[in-house]
Amino acid sequence: MSLSQQYREALLNDVIPFWQQHSVDTQYGGFLTCLDRQGRVFDTDKFVWLQARQVWTFAMLYNRLEQRPDWLATAVHGAEFLKKHGRSADGSWYFSLTREGRPLVQPYNIFSDCFATMAFGQLSLATGSDEQAQLAATTFRHILARRHQTKGQWNKAVAGTRPLKNFALPMILCNLALEIEHLLDKPLVEQTIDECIHEVMDVFYDPASGLIRENVTPDGKGSDSFEGRLLNPGHAIEAMWFIMDLAVRRNDRALLDRAVTITLDTLQYAWDEPFGGILYFMDAGGHPPQQLEWDQKLWWVHAETLISLLKGYQLTGNPACWAWFERVHAYTWSHFPDPGHGEWFGYLNRRGEVLLPLKGGKWKGCYHVPRALFQCWQTLGKIEQVALPR
Amino acid sequence: MSLSQQYREALLNDVIPFWQQHSVDTQYGGFLTCLDRQGRVFDTDKFVWLQARQVWTFAMLYNRLEQRPDWLATAVHGAEFLKKHGRSADGSWYFSLTREGRPLVQPYNIFSDCFATMAFGQLSLATGSDEQAQLAATTFRHILARRHQTKGQWNKAVAGTRPLKNFALPMILCNLALEIEHLLDKPLVEQTIDECIHEVMDVFYDPASGLIRENVTPDGKGSDSFEGRLLNPGHAIEAMWFIMDLAVRRNDRALLDRAVTITLDTLQYAWDEPFGGILYFMDAGGHPPQQLEWDQKLWWVHAETLISLLKGYQLTGNPACWAWFERVHAYTWSHFPDPGHGEWFGYLNRRGEVLLPLKGGKWKGCYHVPRALFQCWQTLGKIEQVALPR
Repeated sequence: MSLSQQYREALLNDVIPFWQQHSVDTQYGGFLTCLDRQGRVFDTDKFVWLQARQVWTFAMLYNRLEQRPDWLATAVHGAEFLKKHGRSADGSWYFSLTREGRPLVQPYNIFSDCFATMAFGQLSLATGSDEQAQLAATTFRHILARRHQTKGQWNKAVAGTRPLKNFALPMILCNLALEIEHLLDKPLVEQTIDECIHEVMDVFYDPASGLIRENVTPDGKGSDSFEGRLLNPGHAIEAMWFIMDLAVRRNDRALLDRAVTITLDTLQYAWDEPFGGILYFMDAGGHPPQQLEWDQKLWWVHAETLISLLKGYQLTGNPACWAWFERVHAYTWSHFPDPGHGEWFGYLNRRGEVLLPLKGGKWKGCYHVPRALFQCWQTLGKIEQVALPR
Repeated sequence: MSLSQQYREALLNDVIPFWQQHSVDTQYGGFLTCLDRQGRVFDTDKFVWLQARQVWTFAMLYNRLEQRPDWLATAVHGAEFLKKHGRSADGSWYFSLTREGRPLVQPYNIFSDCFATMAFGQLSLATGSDEQAQLAATTFRHILARRHQTKGQWNKAVAGTRPLKNFALPMILCNLALEIEHLLDKPLVEQTIDECIHEVMDVFYDPASGLIRENVTPDGKGSDSFEGRLLNPGHAIEAMWFIMDLAVRRNDRALLDRAVTITLDTLQYAWDEPFGGILYFMDAGGHPPQQLEWDQKLWWVHAETLISLLKGYQLTGNPACWAWFERVHAYTWSHFPDPGHGEWFGYLNRRGEVLLPLKGGKWKGCYHVPRALFQCWQTLGKIEQVALPR
C-alpha cells in the first residue's frame, strides 16, 4: 500500500465511519463528541467548536472529495442543531450547550464563531443555501468587529497594564478568509489575507529565535512574562500550512520558503529528543511553563505537522521536509491510531503512552484527524505522481 | 533523628530560610515567588494568593512557634505591599499584580480574598494592629456577601442551565472562621462553622461512594457532567484535617471519626498503585477527566495528606492512619524534597519524576510545605510523647 493509500484508507474506512457511527445524536440533533475508546458516549455536553468542526468536515469532504448523500446529511444534521441552539441574543456563538441544546457556557470564546463561520460557509457551498451563506458572512463580520476585544466581559486582564495580543486569531483568519472567500467582497478577502500574513510572519514571528510567539505586545514586541514567553509549536506549525496555501494562491515563492523554514526550525526546537514526538508547550526562555501538560504529545500537533511537512516538500522539494515527514509519520502512526477500536487517541504522556483513552472529548472531535488524513492523502498523491524521494 | 525532628529540621533549616533568602523583593516590596530549582527568580509577577499565604505563614510561625523579629518583619513586608496594591476599588482582591504592584488580573477569584483575610487576621494577632484586623474582618464579610456569586461578571456559566456549587469555598471557610475567630462575633463564628461542617460532611460528601465531590447541584445532588463527576482527592483530604480541628473544638467524636474514615477512603481510592503517590484529579464514573494533569503528583496533595493522617492517628489511634502515614511519608520524602538546592519540587509526573523543576510559581509558594511541616512536627511531638506505634 502506498503512503497516499494509507492516509486514504484511514480517512474513508476508519475515521469517517467512526464518527458517523458513534457521534450522531438522533434524539436531540447535533453530535455527541465525548466518546470513549470503543466509541461509547461518556458525556453528552455539546461544545460548539466541535459541533461546527464536524459540520465543516463532512461538508468539506462532500464538496472536495465526493458528493455522498450521507456525508451531506451528516453535515446538515449538525448545522440544524447549531442554527437552532448555538447563538446568543447578540449573534455570538455559545461555547457549549447541553445535549438538548440549552446554553451552558457563555460566548466568551471567539473561536466558536470562527468554527461556525467555517461550518456554514463550507455547507453553503454544498447546499447553495442563502440562509447558511448569510449566517457565515454575518458571523465573519461579527468576528472582525470583535477581534480586538475577543473575550468581552469575560476578559480577566486589567486593561492597560500589560496589553498583549494572541496569535490564534490572525492564524485562524488566514484560513477563514479562504474558507468563505465565495461569500465576501474581493477587497475584504485580500485585505484580510494581507493583514494575517503580516501578523503571522512579521509580528508574531521572532527573527532572533526563528520561532513564533503565542503572545506579543500590541506593537509586536516580546513580553518577558509567562504569556509572552509561551511557545505552542503545534500551533505555529499548523499556521505554516495556512501560509503555504496563501503563498501558492499569491504565487509568492519567498513567502513559501519562509513558511517552510519556520516549520523546520520549530520542529527542530520542539522535537522531544529522548522520547520522540513534539512537545505541547515550551517557554522561550527555557523557564518552567505554567501549563502542567507541557510535555504531553497531542494528536492535533502531530496531524498538523504532517500536513505542513508534506506541503512544504511538495511545493519546494526541500529534502529536510521529507526527512522530517518520515520521522513524524513513523511516530504518529505507531502511537496515535488505535487499530483495535478505530480512530486516534488524543492525549499521550511524554513517553508516548496513552494518557486519556478517549477518542473524543471537550476539545477532540471530528476535525484535525480527518482534515490531516485528507490533506496528506491529496498531497502525497501529487508527490507520488512525480516519484517518492529515495 | 526522630520523625518530629525531621519535620522540624526541614521547616526551620531548609524551607523557611529558602523563602527568606530568595523571595523577599527588597526593591518593590512583597515577594517574588517564581523561583527556579536554585531559588533564582525566573518571573516577577505577583500572585495575590501567594503574597497573602506567605504573610500568613510567617505571621503564624511568629504567633505559634517563636517571636522571631525577622519572621514578623517578613510578614509585615508582604502585608504592606498587599495593603498598598492588592485591592480593587470595591475592596475585592486582585488575582495578580506586576512586580511594581500594578493590577494585572481582575478580582475574579474569591480565594484571593480568603487568603488576604487569613494573612491580615494572623498578622493582626502578632502586631495588635487595628488596621490589619479591620482589613481582615471587612474582607471576610465581603467574602460572605459574594459567596453565592463568587466569580461576578467573569462567570462563564449561563445562569440557570446547570447550577452547581463548588466545594472549595465551604472547605476554606471552615478554616477561615477559626483563623479570624478573634475578630468576629461569636454567633457568626459558630454559624459559619455549622454551615461549613454541614456543607462539607453532608452536602458534598456522597454516601454512595464514600467520597467528596468537587461540585454538586444547589440542593446537594450529584450531576452527571464533567464538573459533577470531578474528584480532587487532595482537596477532600485537606478538608478533613480542617474538620478534625473543628471536631476537637466541639468535642464531637462522631464528626472526628467520620473525618478519619473519609480521609482513609479517599486515600485508598486515589492512591496510584502501580507508581505510588496520590492522583491529582479523578472522574467518579471512571471516565476520562478534562484535566490533562490528572495523573500528576503534586506537592500540596501529599503535604496535606500527611497532616490529615497524623491528626487522625493522634486523635483516634486508628492504626490504618499510621500505616498510611508511613506509606505517604516514604513516598513524599523520597520524591519532593530537593536536598541539593533546598525546598520541595512541586510537580512530578505519574512516575514521580520531576515535571517542572521550579520551587515556586503561579500556584506554589511559601504555604503548604511549611504549614505541613509545622503541623506534622507538632502532631508527631504529641504522638511521640505517648510512644510511636510498632
